[in-house]
Amino acid sequence: MNAVKRFFLLGYSSFKYIGIVHVGTRLFSNSRITAKNLSSNWGAKKIKKFKLAFARTMTDPKVNEILDPLRKSVKEQGDIVRSLKENGAAELDVKKAINELKARKKMLEDKELELAPPEVGFDRVKMEDLLKRRFYFDQSFSIYGGIAGQFDFGPMGCAMKTNMLNAWRSHFVLEEQMLEVDCTMLTPEPVLKASGHVDRFADLMVKDVKNGECFRLDHLIKAHLEKMMMDKKTTAEQKAEYEDIIVKLDGMNKEEMNAVLRRFNMKSPVTGNDLSDAMEFNLMFSTSIGPTGLVKGFLRPETAQGIFVNFKRLLEFNQSKLPFAAAQIGNSFRNEISPRSGLIRVREFTMAEIEHFVDPANKDHPKFDAVKDLVVTLYSACNQMEGKAAEPIRIGEAVKQKTIANETLAYFMARIYQFMVKVGVDPRRLRFRQHMSNEMAHYACDCWDAECKTSYGWVECVGCADRSCYDLTQHTKATGVKLVAEKKLAEPKTIEVVECVPQKPVMGKAFKKEAKDVMEVLSTLGEDNIIEMEKKLETDGEYSLMVKGKEYILTKEMVTVKRYQKTVHVEEIVPAVIEPSFGIGRIMYSVWEHNFRMREGDEQRTYFALPPLVAPMKCSVLPLSNNPEFAPFVKRISQDLTKNDVSHKVDDSSGSIGRRYARTDEIAIPFGITVDFDTLQSPHTATVRERDTMEQIRAPIEDLGEVVRDLACGKRSWDEVKVCYPKFEQQETTRAG
Amino acid sequence: MNAVKRFFLLGYSSFKYIGIVHVGTRLFSNSRITAKNLSSNWGAKKIKKFKLAFARTMTDPKVNEILDPLRKSVKEQGDIVRSLKENGAAELDVKKAINELKARKKMLEDKELELAPPEVGFDRVKMEDLLKRRFYFDQSFSIYGGIAGQFDFGPMGCAMKTNMLNAWRSHFVLEEQMLEVDCTMLTPEPVLKASGHVDRFADLMVKDVKNGECFRLDHLIKAHLEKMMMDKKTTAEQKAEYEDIIVKLDGMNKEEMNAVLRRFNMKSPVTGNDLSDAMEFNLMFSTSIGPTGLVKGFLRPETAQGIFVNFKRLLEFNQSKLPFAAAQIGNSFRNEISPRSGLIRVREFTMAEIEHFVDPANKDHPKFDAVKDLVVTLYSACNQMEGKAAEPIRIGEAVKQKTIANETLAYFMARIYQFMVKVGVDPRRLRFRQHMSNEMAHYACDCWDAECKTSYGWVECVGCADRSCYDLTQHTKATGVKLVAEKKLAEPKTIEVVECVPQKPVMGKAFKKEAKDVMEVLSTLGEDNIIEMEKKLETDGEYSLMVKGKEYILTKEMVTVKRYQKTVHVEEIVPAVIEPSFGIGRIMYSVWEHNFRMREGDEQRTYFALPPLVAPMKCSVLPLSNNPEFAPFVKRISQDLTKNDVSHKVDDSSGSIGRRYARTDEIAIPFGITVDFDTLQSPHTATVRERDTMEQIRAPIEDLGEVVRDLACGKRSWDEVKVCYPKFEQQETTRAG
Repeated sequence: MNAVKRFFLLGYSSFKYIGIVHVGTRLFSNSRITAKNLSSNWGAKKIKKFKLAFARTMTDPKVNEILDPLRKSVKEQGDIVRSLKENGAAELDVKKAINELKARKKMLEDKELELAPPEVGFDRVKMEDLLKRRFYFDQSFSIYGGIAGQFDFGPMGCAMKTNMLNAWRSHFVLEEQMLEVDCTMLTPEPVLKASGHVDRFADLMVKDVKNGECFRLDHLIKAHLEKMMMDKKTTAEQKAEYEDIIVKLDGMNKEEMNAVLRRFNMKSPVTGNDLSDAMEFNLMFSTSIGPTGLVKGFLRPETAQGIFVNFKRLLEFNQSKLPFAAAQIGNSFRNEISPRSGLIRVREFTMAEIEHFVDPANKDHPKFDAVKDLVVTLYSACNQMEGKAAEPIRIGEAVKQKTIANETLAYFMARIYQFMVKVGVDPRRLRFRQHMSNEMAHYACDCWDAECKTSYGWVECVGCADRSCYDLTQHTKATGVKLVAEKKLAEPKTIEVVECVPQKPVMGKAFKKEAKDVMEVLSTLGEDNIIEMEKKLETDGEYSLMVKGKEYILTKEMVTVKRYQKTVHVEEIVPAVIEPSFGIGRIMYSVWEHNFRMREGDEQRTYFALPPLVAPMKCSVLPLSNNPEFAPFVKRISQDLTKNDVSHKVDDSSGSIGRRYARTDEIAIPFGITVDFDTLQSPHTATVRERDTMEQIRAPIEDLGEVVRDLACGKRSWDEVKVCYPKFEQQETTRAG
Repeated sequence: MNAVKRFFLLGYSSFKYIGIVHVGTRLFSNSRITAKNLSSNWGAKKIKKFKLAFARTMTDPKVNEILDPLRKSVKEQGDIVRSLKENGAAELDVKKAINELKARKKMLEDKELELAPPEVGFDRVKMEDLLKRRFYFDQSFSIYGGIAGQFDFGPMGCAMKTNMLNAWRSHFVLEEQMLEVDCTMLTPEPVLKASGHVDRFADLMVKDVKNGECFRLDHLIKAHLEKMMMDKKTTAEQKAEYEDIIVKLDGMNKEEMNAVLRRFNMKSPVTGNDLSDAMEFNLMFSTSIGPTGLVKGFLRPETAQGIFVNFKRLLEFNQSKLPFAAAQIGNSFRNEISPRSGLIRVREFTMAEIEHFVDPANKDHPKFDAVKDLVVTLYSACNQMEGKAAEPIRIGEAVKQKTIANETLAYFMARIYQFMVKVGVDPRRLRFRQHMSNEMAHYACDCWDAECKTSYGWVECVGCADRSCYDLTQHTKATGVKLVAEKKLAEPKTIEVVECVPQKPVMGKAFKKEAKDVMEVLSTLGEDNIIEMEKKLETDGEYSLMVKGKEYILTKEMVTVKRYQKTVHVEEIVPAVIEPSFGIGRIMYSVWEHNFRMREGDEQRTYFALPPLVAPMKCSVLPLSNNPEFAPFVKRISQDLTKNDVSHKVDDSSGSIGRRYARTDEIAIPFGITVDFDTLQSPHTATVRERDTMEQIRAPIEDLGEVVRDLACGKRSWDEVKVCYPKFEQQETTRAG
């Protein structure tokens, strides 16, 4: 295991370590799916399409022929891992078996992706050209040569991002009454020390010993071995060995990778210079807070810690009641060693995170019934171990079968699914992959990643983890501040209390002004510590206490330990945390891929079929030509749209109407109103065009504001509007009027 | 002048250097004001109040008696500065005179603030208690001891901030069709070198030579001298001298401050240790981008540079047409030496900035007519020089008189005014202060700060500057990339072209692969450079060209210089930039101060009278008691509110209705619906309460969703709603029903 993987074991869902792209696929061996799967924003027409697509991707026998042996090989190894664990085999043996399992899984997934039918009409080069040309996003500071892993969103990307974040806020924060917070990004070191990031949030790298250039070690080894495999002199046996190493890289630790580096005598691929030994590189950006240079800080690598350190205030705001959820939208930073893959792996990115605090003894969810019939595609740990494909299943069923650990986790998975589909993710290319027990933190009960299939493979876009009580416990340990909630007992109970009572006058005399601090620390001591102190005082006559980094020697005269019984009606519990964590840039990228289209018969006319909810603008208004008689109608329609809160763009530039439609298609405007010569006739009408079907209707201009508003917010579908107005084929009035 | 001030002279409006709080006041000597002053969101009732307040603050004769000599003294010095400048006096003499002028201005402003009637009912301690108690915002990481200058927004602060940013987006980006972008915060050094921040964005500080503790030098000197002034042994003469130094601190440079430090032999106020010499401390947080440690980067100190470096893409997006505006909302960072004053001076803050690109030869604005009659309070440079007060004036008049330099700048000032009033700034406590010519950058034409009066004095919340062509020119110089727009000429003209033509074969032979890079740089050379090169080649036979940091020697054989005439229809211009720049945290703080209220007769019942537009939630729904019969009505009302997009909170906790009203008042909820025993009767009705007046009406429950929606979005005023429904005094049905 390398450092990153070890970090996962300490509780970070792999999304939270955003660098990793999981590659794999799902071939729908079981393609039944119900309409309940689909949110209301997904029209009847699309449901039909979806079903058809499922039918099409049914595994064909030839594909099975190739995959079956690979599946068997995974299952075989999965069984070995299981039996080793059951028989309490040595840790090293288990680890080796798991690495082999991972390697086999990866081979299966790679082959599956290779065999999966390509997405019809998708062309990444064409899409990237459109994204760049219409400035959805582009590299930051490119007039200065650019910086890898940093991107700026232009007007269309920014508007889409704003719409997506507003949709997120409405779907999660408002609908679930979450407590949204906005915390600072600059974070002092002790906070990230407690969370585990300072010690373990690292990748392995090597340096060119002469010029200091850095390489991510796993990437370097892979590239080197792949090059050697291309060499004609390499034997089949050697090739197999190199392939085996590549596949196992992900599970290697520092020493193992170093050994590979030295065994093949690898040099810098750029200069040919020698390379340093592998070293861990912490992925956080560090800085100093304040002028002294003594307060070390980092740019946060996730937004979650800001919520945890505010837990007490939030609990109080919620009138001390559990459960409640806090949410935060904001940027996080990771100093990737060599970022690639566009928006998928970046150094600065927007996250939206939820921390749902709940009684660990009861993770049921009051609104679970509302989602239990939703069908989602699950790629469970069990299926992964057995070489099986992902499967569609009802959320309620998955909880009943204990595939998903509890209702709250399952409820959020359902809500994540609904959100993703609402903002334009293709449900056929969305799955939940469960972390296998060896990927998961020792304290985590369950963890699922929502993955979108893109041309980069399956990309993890949302992590959904049950983090148990880990984070609050860590911050309590570091600060001495109890981060707990009170839970009412079913009936009062009598407990034994061990209390430490300071003798104020003696203390005051001994410690002067500092006595107050000492007593404060004493009051936070847990039962175990008090008993330990009591023993020490008994045997040694004194006890050493650390207060603000300074040692104080307590004597018997200073403290007495009191024991008594007490009837209590509440108990203190450390809440468990269920954490859905969204990578907004990755979701946007997936939505672009899933909605990129080319017009039939004209590959140059590319566009994005974005849902109106996230489209940067909702409507265009186009006069057919620069005839001055059109102007007052354009103005009136524009005002009506503004009155109805419909964001729109008037395009009265020259150019044929077809060319202007194509231009508005490129920026994903779903509806277009055209003022033509028929508009000038009474009753005044104009055409409305739908982007994806290019169908047009003709409606009275006084209706347009409301019609487009209803279409844009999903209150009415295009099919519904179509039946209310005549279809438009050609205007009746021509130039002469 | 200290470093900061010098920085201003290089073009930074003082808001952009967020540290400075301008202190001063306005006594309305001319209190006439028209209704046009007020946006439509400001109801008729408030207009009346506003007029009354103006009348009340009319300068009374006693106040004038005290202020008149101070005003005269400012005017006297202003005249001296003017005449020195007119007579071309030595720079040093002008500088000294300006420092004296500033000192006199400060004395006048301090006295004005001292004499101004205190805001009725304002109590900062009480307000801060409320802000903390209901977690509007609080110090970050306080369980770890907290970090100065960093704050987290809790649920109510975060919701208010979101609402304010949405209002900003709608008021500026959507209404003015701006191009919003979202750029990265991590910025490589060369970008901020070009903008001037690397060299000049600094404050002066000194260090404790033993423990390294840092102090902001101006603060340290001020505190030291103030302490000495309290000493009984200090003579009146000495006191006057110390006061004089304090007043002049703001204008002192490093050497002058150092001299003061040494003359009074100042030591660390904490340890008594010796202090280092004054040193400049750059206020940007620095970090390394990538693993090598070689790419230095900073957290951006303002969002503006992200727009400038994207200028070409944005111009292209706008189909190459001027004028257009780009906008950005995002966080910026400043490593303040010793932040104080709560949200006013912080290390991480949200800005909203607009860069409006315009032809420098024509700064008229097409929509200026719509705002020309708006009355705003201007504190012009001229009035400041003459010791006069700020004055209300129509925007159109101010442009006509040339008080404001051009229509575009004035248009934005009007729009800023409308925005500020819309989100809850008290127009009586809002003024625009013009930068005096000595504060302004040499290239800037005009600069105004929107300042809000708070208990900290006048706080600069929005800067509005005409930055001319400075930034684009700087980035062009640094990168060689032309940041220009094409302007159509009134008629075509013939120009002389000097062009440098590379001899490709010779170059290719000499520079191999690098020839392409060399030719690219050659193609960007301006006319002056080409002529210089031609001369050098003539005299020395060679010319040295820097390409990507490497020197290339060009010979005569490699390039020829061509001269010819060309008829052109367009010319290239570097656009000027008008920049409104908003400090969101400071505006929020001012809005809190301006809307903090205590109930008459009960000082414990404090609340915020926030406009519904920015209030965290719009409505509460309260059952009178826990009678189960109320529940279905509460649910129905809540659903109706959701259907009408009204954010609301159901409070069915125990506690009297009065106590629950008080709790919702504290979180600024403007409307409250109560379900009582009368609700159970048919026709079903409930009460609606307005927060500020505490008036209540009784309306049928089927009306409530729409009524509250209209109230919340400002479509109907409370006065309008009141006349439609009976006033509620007391329910008719009691417990028995």
